[in-house]
Amino acid sequence: MKIGVLGGGQLGRMLALAGYPLGLRFCFLDPSPQASAGHLAELVIAHYDDPDALQRFAAQVDLVTYEFENVPVESARQLAQHRPVYPPPEALEASQDRLTEKRFFRGLGILTPAFAPVASLAELEQAVEQLGLPAVLKTRRFGYDGKGQMILRAPSDLRPAWEALGRLPLILEEFIAFDRELSLVAVRGRDGALAFYPLVENHHRDGILRLSLAPAPRLTQELQAVAESYAKKILEALNYVGVLALELFERHGELLANEMAPRVHNSGHWTIEGAEASQFENHLRAIVGWPLGSTAARGQCAMLNLIGEIPKIDEVLKVPGAHLHLYGKAPRPGRKLGHITLCEPTNEALEAKLAHLQPFIR
Amino acid sequence: MKIGVLGGGQLGRMLALAGYPLGLRFCFLDPSPQASAGHLAELVIAHYDDPDALQRFAAQVDLVTYEFENVPVESARQLAQHRPVYPPPEALEASQDRLTEKRFFRGLGILTPAFAPVASLAELEQAVEQLGLPAVLKTRRFGYDGKGQMILRAPSDLRPAWEALGRLPLILEEFIAFDRELSLVAVRGRDGALAFYPLVENHHRDGILRLSLAPAPRLTQELQAVAESYAKKILEALNYVGVLALELFERHGELLANEMAPRVHNSGHWTIEGAEASQFENHLRAIVGWPLGSTAARGQCAMLNLIGEIPKIDEVLKVPGAHLHLYGKAPRPGRKLGHITLCEPTNEALEAKLAHLQPFIR
Repeated sequence: MKIGVLGGGQLGRMLALAGYPLGLRFCFLDPSPQASAGHLAELVIAHYDDPDALQRFAAQVDLVTYEFENVPVESARQLAQHRPVYPPPEALEASQDRLTEKRFFRGLGILTPAFAPVASLAELEQAVEQLGLPAVLKTRRFGYDGKGQMILRAPSDLRPAWEALGRLPLILEEFIAFDRELSLVAVRGRDGALAFYPLVENHHRDGILRLSLAPAPRLTQELQAVAESYAKKILEALNYVGVLALELFERHGELLANEMAPRVHNSGHWTIEGAEASQFENHLRAIVGWPLGSTAARGQCAMLNLIGEIPKIDEVLKVPGAHLHLYGKAPRPGRKLGHITLCEPTNEALEAKLAHLQPFIR
Repeated sequence: MKIGVLGGGQLGRMLALAGYPLGLRFCFLDPSPQASAGHLAELVIAHYDDPDALQRFAAQVDLVTYEFENVPVESARQLAQHRPVYPPPEALEASQDRLTEKRFFRGLGILTPAFAPVASLAELEQAVEQLGLPAVLKTRRFGYDGKGQMILRAPSDLRPAWEALGRLPLILEEFIAFDRELSLVAVRGRDGALAFYPLVENHHRDGILRLSLAPAPRLTQELQAVAESYAKKILEALNYVGVLALELFERHGELLANEMAPRVHNSGHWTIEGAEASQFENHLRAIVGWPLGSTAARGQCAMLNLIGEIPKIDEVLKVPGAHLHLYGKAPRPGRKLGHITLCEPTNEALEAKLAHLQPFIR
């Protein structure tokens, strides 16, 4: 069976690496000839909205998925006329616009930060009156890694923020003084079977994920149950198939949904070594219609992103138990180039190992 | 860095799957356009002794290795004039001829079954007089998976065996009534660093490996130390770089060397899930010149080969903890098509899981 993947970055590469042992083959579609999934599978170089290329792509694959959530919904719908597309295009649509997404969460009874749409400076002033300061002004679409958002702290911040972002539809969100950021990677099979990895604690800097700890330290059954109940509502409402990631804020023991990604997720990379079946394998099992694999963690794990530059490989490999994953991408400031995973039997052992890796996280 | 691999079968595929996360790229050379490593890397389709193809191949890679030990030594030597070739061509040469190989072992003080070269029916009769019956008559070259060998039990077996095999140079070997078959996967870095996986117990049927148990049940430190001392002598005598597998017979607590393979080995496949760093990763670390990874086992593992036919994938995947590895090859009787690995914390848990998989090993 050949899986067609829209997007040919690191998530696609890791899907293929998980899928080859299951006997699957892969074809990627990406506008860039440098897309690094092309190192290890066929690559169709085309824009995501090129109907002829989509047609040719559909003809040579059995099933379509994506590793990038900003694929045009119309393209996913076009492909769905020819081949099964998982997750469903509706999930793309729900996740591409922060306003639609938050309304969708609220409609399911999932807690979120307060929010208001903003289409003019007057509406921004009104929204700030309603939500108070500080607050976060975000573009509704195409934000990632902290791009397309600004924190408003004083009334004088409103006009410059509007001038910087206001050409696009915006959303103002309550600023959450969270205790920590968590994420849940969930998966739903074609038969409706559900599985959830343990919650992960995420640490960002400059809007980019730097470190994930899995399972999240001090994780309680109650917290895990609340997060799973959120994900279950989302997965079932969308008749979802595949892996979905849900980003959450924890504040005073309460979980607020921040956003979702209808795909495998950076905060789930630890599962390659740290779980019985990785998020990549489980995404493939789900979309092909195979039984899901165990999401149980094998110890305490840490995943460190390599951002902007690649450390000396032999220096990383000499740290016992450090698992290196490079993405085959050219270095560029702020770019995710790889990650390192550690899995240890206890938190103490993990912390000792993490100290060895400090030089690589700067 | 691009690694050139001679041979494009499952061992090559698994090398590439281990190497992509380390940022390596791959190019395979194989005479068959169906070579399944071609699913996930460049494939040059050419005979191993085609000097022009070898020249072109060398020009597009940084380093050469092999996944198949019957590559012509002359081809490896030709490549070595242009690019580093690991393991060294001398290791290929030593392993391709059972007579040379056994003499090499003996020269290093490594115990082997008694043996004698056979070039005529008269020499065969003489050799049987010397070694007694039963004995095993084997072709000196190109034997694998039990092919090219016959057991002689009675004097009347000599002539038919000679007629079946005698067109090729032969070796007669003492028949060893072994207690069990073991193998050691060892690795040596470019800097001379050594690492050894725990001994594995192997079960064959019809000359083909069916099941490996790792670490071998009832493994003692003494047995491991003897096996490691054999491998160390071999690796150092050959100034070897990369993974080497040594097949052994255990008889009354003594280890006799049967043969070696200058490459990653079927009895080391359990290391993908069962060891901190797999044999594939360690082979690449060794030949690139990076530090070796830990060879420690993570629990008790079993590796079952899938021979001749592929079971229903969803039936395998629903066994908790069963890791499926398919090789992308078309089914054919006696052909290795994939394997399944189980890793459990204890031998008892492993045996219970193995019972679930009985239907798949027939």
